[in-house]
Amino acid sequence: MMLRNLFKPTDNKWQPIINQLEAAIGKDGVVRRKEELLTYECDGLASYRQRPALVVLPRTTEQVAAAVKICHDNDIPWVARGAGTGLSGGALPVEDCVLIVTARMKQILDIDLENHRITVQPGIINNWVTQAVSGAGFYYAPDPSSQIICSIGGNVAENSGGVHCLKYGVTTNHVIGLKLVIPDGSVIDVGGTIPEMPGYDLTGLFVGSEGTLGIATEVTLRILKTPESICVVLADFPSIEDAGAAVAGIISAGIIPAGMEIMDNLSINAVEDVVATGCYPRDAEAILLVELDGLEVEVAEGKKRIAEICRQNNSRNLTSANDAETRLKLWKGRKAAFAAAGHISVNYFVQDGVIPRTKLVSVLKEINRLSEESGYRIANVFHAGDGNLHPLILYDNSVPGEFEEVEKLGGEILKLCVEAGGSLSGEHGIGSDKNCYMPYMFNETDLETMGYVRNAFNHKGLANPGKMFPTPRTCGEVANAGMIKPIKDAELF
Amino acid sequence: MMLRNLFKPTDNKWQPIINQLEAAIGKDGVVRRKEELLTYECDGLASYRQRPALVVLPRTTEQVAAAVKICHDNDIPWVARGAGTGLSGGALPVEDCVLIVTARMKQILDIDLENHRITVQPGIINNWVTQAVSGAGFYYAPDPSSQIICSIGGNVAENSGGVHCLKYGVTTNHVIGLKLVIPDGSVIDVGGTIPEMPGYDLTGLFVGSEGTLGIATEVTLRILKTPESICVVLADFPSIEDAGAAVAGIISAGIIPAGMEIMDNLSINAVEDVVATGCYPRDAEAILLVELDGLEVEVAEGKKRIAEICRQNNSRNLTSANDAETRLKLWKGRKAAFAAAGHISVNYFVQDGVIPRTKLVSVLKEINRLSEESGYRIANVFHAGDGNLHPLILYDNSVPGEFEEVEKLGGEILKLCVEAGGSLSGEHGIGSDKNCYMPYMFNETDLETMGYVRNAFNHKGLANPGKMFPTPRTCGEVANAGMIKPIKDAELF
Repeated sequence: MMLRNLFKPTDNKWQPIINQLEAAIGKDGVVRRKEELLTYECDGLASYRQRPALVVLPRTTEQVAAAVKICHDNDIPWVARGAGTGLSGGALPVEDCVLIVTARMKQILDIDLENHRITVQPGIINNWVTQAVSGAGFYYAPDPSSQIICSIGGNVAENSGGVHCLKYGVTTNHVIGLKLVIPDGSVIDVGGTIPEMPGYDLTGLFVGSEGTLGIATEVTLRILKTPESICVVLADFPSIEDAGAAVAGIISAGIIPAGMEIMDNLSINAVEDVVATGCYPRDAEAILLVELDGLEVEVAEGKKRIAEICRQNNSRNLTSANDAETRLKLWKGRKAAFAAAGHISVNYFVQDGVIPRTKLVSVLKEINRLSEESGYRIANVFHAGDGNLHPLILYDNSVPGEFEEVEKLGGEILKLCVEAGGSLSGEHGIGSDKNCYMPYMFNETDLETMGYVRNAFNHKGLANPGKMFPTPRTCGEVANAGMIKPIKDAELF
Repeated sequence: MMLRNLFKPTDNKWQPIINQLEAAIGKDGVVRRKEELLTYECDGLASYRQRPALVVLPRTTEQVAAAVKICHDNDIPWVARGAGTGLSGGALPVEDCVLIVTARMKQILDIDLENHRITVQPGIINNWVTQAVSGAGFYYAPDPSSQIICSIGGNVAENSGGVHCLKYGVTTNHVIGLKLVIPDGSVIDVGGTIPEMPGYDLTGLFVGSEGTLGIATEVTLRILKTPESICVVLADFPSIEDAGAAVAGIISAGIIPAGMEIMDNLSINAVEDVVATGCYPRDAEAILLVELDGLEVEVAEGKKRIAEICRQNNSRNLTSANDAETRLKLWKGRKAAFAAAGHISVNYFVQDGVIPRTKLVSVLKEINRLSEESGYRIANVFHAGDGNLHPLILYDNSVPGEFEEVEKLGGEILKLCVEAGGSLSGEHGIGSDKNCYMPYMFNETDLETMGYVRNAFNHKGLANPGKMFPTPRTCGEVANAGMIKPIKDAELF
């Protein structure tokens, strides 16, 4: 009976592989039962599913290296997976692959407060880092909305952002060094214990490479001193334009808030329906959340100036909070915005595009136009300070054709972003979701150059194949529909 | 008569090359006379010289691409050169090479104040960037000591730092996008007009790659708002240890100054001898210069706290300045420190190593020990905030053997830095000066991986060959002397 549940399709090939993997990682570290493999069929981009051939759960660098080497020697594609919360299908398995999951790599390896750094295994959850050092007056800055469930390894792969990245930058600005298993199974160290290292910046190259260059097994992160004072300001506006003008005003006044977020009326009402913060006025066309941090005098002065700028831009009400409890309450709705969209609509499709901050208002108008034309409601929540938009397209997957229409609408929004001088992705990554759109931004020579770099690490193409870069096989249809420039050459990646 | 001065050694090979280069760049853009080539025999690391076969002076991306393509097609090595102020021999010609000099590429291509960015050609001098935008209330942060003569292209190649990089980071943190000519003569765009871009971070990879991956022909830089208030604090201390403890105290108080520099007694007296600032007490064992910037209230509060911390650490006198004129006076000695070393000694050898900030005092003690043992005076000037040391070893090149001894001493200092958990170079680069020391920091697999990346761009090895990475040919002697781990394999790069 038990045998029926084992992964069998090509047993002749797999049995020796399974033996080798079990010898390296232990029997309990190799998942092969169909029903257990189900969990791993997709990541946060749940619209695509693919069962892996096997899942391995290593605990150490050596075990990861062994698994990768076995794949390399046997020409088996492999995909790395952290907590599986990614939104671009970066951890989506490919056919007949080994999925290397870091869920058991949850050790904090070193805390060096004097030098403001911490070294962790990749399976550590994002906000555990802050928890580990907050008692000593430190924190880890990048804070994706999923920070209570997403892992550092996934953050490194996707170069994750968050609401506090306006002042402090995204993941790449906080990774000092990495221990990596590259696709031939070798272990290399890139970066180090100090920020500036000679040689090529392979740390920076690896962060955001979405599992195509290898797998990080140790991550050294920069931690920051907890600011003396933190203040959140909530302002409501009669129009998105006014909120956008306030953002421009704050930036040009030379104030750099820790974060600066806008939510539109639809999002405001969605979160009030679901989490009932009681702080977000339901009749406001937009709210702006600004977080300031620093010395007490600096925060107080910043708050005064921001209040002035908001008022000049027609803000009706201003609330602010310095104590942790009220600050969390003000942030609660923003942090719950995606989940709330899931409550007011059967399904939602979240887009992640970037535009120059100065184009906020004009691009949002265009998104509204697309919403009206298509008949799909779009809720807007975004990192206004860095122009990172997160339009949430509301739809119903059970209605035939809606998903396809919404996917197309998402593509049109991306096109708007790129045409405004922006980018396909701010923080969710390209993965298998947006690889066909890469030619929006990069010409053939640009993509070829990235391909050379990929091949330098991953010359057999076994590490996360088909992700991040367009392939004629997967992107042919999009190209034929005229949505992107067709790829002429043979499969580049 | 004129013909005698033309570059002739291998005329048969060169004449068609010269014809092609002249057709692409114009006759006045190709330098071939021996006496004109003299200027280009070395960069700021004047201890090594090599005459290039030819020098070309392109004005546009197309001309650079044409020159690179001609080299590529004819298997001619080439070296890029900015203003030639580099201190690690990155722009040192190699035998029979074409030197591509960006001195005529001095156009500002675009200023976009709204989005805080500027696009320039690589020949633009560092402080021209600030001059171009200061009227509008902006500045460019990285400020190497050579900022009035060094060029942005060279800054990009070497990932230059400066005294203001503690708070704002080095060049790589300020380059948003690049137009590049890669070694096969193709032109690619990396990065873009916004900071976060999908795909591999090739911008970050290129910055600091020391001319081995291609040549930047357009550079888009982030510019910052001029701070509302700036204040420089000068404190003197009875010992280096006290100054080091003050630095540690400031950092652990959560204050991040724009810059934080220490000079020792020998440096203080050297600069007072030469530029007579009148501000640096000659009897102090060390001075600490701290620059604070930000909102007025923030700077005032920071200054108060820094004064307290300095006093707690036995500082005798504190001076501070808010107005630009006095601030410049306080900085003047620090900025002139290298030049001053050249006045108190016939020659000096500047080293550039990094250590974790917490090891400042112990490493400086070791440097002192080396100085006493060797009999060479060493003046210490350093970016204390980020642990970037610049020991200046004073010697006399006309005394046979001194240069060799001093070079060896420099190597021992580097070894100290690496053993303390630091790095071979903070901001001057590896070039041809330190490539033999790379195995101090990187094992064979690490270096091999960098080699793969290099080959991805530079598969013929024509772009700046022999730089940055050790080769058995050039590094054999050092290895045989037991100074570094010998390189076993055939020439890697």
